[in-house]
Amino acid sequence: MIFRQLFEPVSSTYTYIVADPVSKQGLVIDSVRETFERDLLFVNQLELDLKYVFDTHVHADHVTAASEFRAQTKAQTGVSEHSGVDCADIYLKDGQSYFLGKLEIKVLATPGHTNSCMSFYIQDRVFTGDTLLIRGCGRTDFQQGSSEKLFKSVREKLFTLPDETLVFPAHNYQGVMCSSIAEEKKYNPRLGLDKTKGEFVQIMSELKLANPKMMDVAVPLNLQCGKAS
Amino acid sequence: MIFRQLFEPVSSTYTYIVADPVSKQGLVIDSVRETFERDLLFVNQLELDLKYVFDTHVHADHVTAASEFRAQTKAQTGVSEHSGVDCADIYLKDGQSYFLGKLEIKVLATPGHTNSCMSFYIQDRVFTGDTLLIRGCGRTDFQQGSSEKLFKSVREKLFTLPDETLVFPAHNYQGVMCSSIAEEKKYNPRLGLDKTKGEFVQIMSELKLANPKMMDVAVPLNLQCGKAS
Repeated sequence: MIFRQLFEPVSSTYTYIVADPVSKQGLVIDSVRETFERDLLFVNQLELDLKYVFDTHVHADHVTAASEFRAQTKAQTGVSEHSGVDCADIYLKDGQSYFLGKLEIKVLATPGHTNSCMSFYIQDRVFTGDTLLIRGCGRTDFQQGSSEKLFKSVREKLFTLPDETLVFPAHNYQGVMCSSIAEEKKYNPRLGLDKTKGEFVQIMSELKLANPKMMDVAVPLNLQCGKAS
Repeated sequence: MIFRQLFEPVSSTYTYIVADPVSKQGLVIDSVRETFERDLLFVNQLELDLKYVFDTHVHADHVTAASEFRAQTKAQTGVSEHSGVDCADIYLKDGQSYFLGKLEIKVLATPGHTNSCMSFYIQDRVFTGDTLLIRGCGRTDFQQGSSEKLFKSVREKLFTLPDETLVFPAHNYQGVMCSSIAEEKKYNPRLGLDKTKGEFVQIMSELKLANPKMMDVAVPLNLQCGKAS
């Protein structure tokens, strides 16, 4: 697998490039408008045939570069069928598979942070968006978030993947690039196996976080696929 | 291979944890004093038997956590035999191999940024310190740096590794985690195969960079292995 992880520092977002080394067909996950030029350059220098640009969800903290990628490559954009977006090329459904050559992208619906969060399971790694973060998880207090749903998504979907599966989230704020399912089962202070659903719901209800600064700009723009500039 | 990449944002340094999945013997490359507690926690949570803490060179922009790791684990510290350091457990020499279980760490002397820079070649990836950066390289204007030596190290050592070898440097300032030998041969604006030694020496002589802010503190402390606090 060709694999590159890239970081956008204002929203602390990880963007991922995944590609099949044989066909060179590629996927970009969670692109960011501010780093579009950098990431397009890597796609081109890696000589990829960019097939898909998927967002794990409708982000509230940054604007997607999905439309820019669509405008400047042959890629199709994809987001959950439940996202409220009506400008995507592909509406992702739980249990579907997409392919980069022979490399399978398994789509897992993992709602909770928002009602339409998706994770992408590819070979030995899972891209968890804001559902499962490294030693944390996304907030559940807006965009139809639900602590109960997030708990179920993590425990019944992500934590049923093999223990050694690498976890690549949409964000990290401590300079950590990845984790594994085994580590999160053991050490996630909210969702680890030592926590009950009731404890998790209580933890989340007590967070009382301010809204993301970019939210009022980012969500409407992301519902329009980030618009091509 | 167990592999983790970690980032320290003040000096934009990447620290690496590499370990053999069978024996769990581990190596930390280019630790940073400010992120020692975070990184020790990961070493412990990954249940590693930390064997080595190596620095690619005597850093001028951050203080190593080598002594802290030595004080709090069983790890041996290692740095080049030409580093001027006299408090390390191991003095690394070109061409040596160290082992984490069956996982081989090949030591490559790659002087140029400093006179004692080392790279570590492990399985499918090379840890290049400040010798080869992503689309760049370390400066060569202090600590016995030499543009001629750096050019030779990159062209005759690093660029002779397989094209698909992943390049993990000590720093990046653009949110990019890794590269490959093939990419750097083709796209490195200073050291790519389209550049001559004369062109490279000229580029480096014209950089005229200010000294790193931490230099007067970091170099003396690193010559003392970062001192255990």
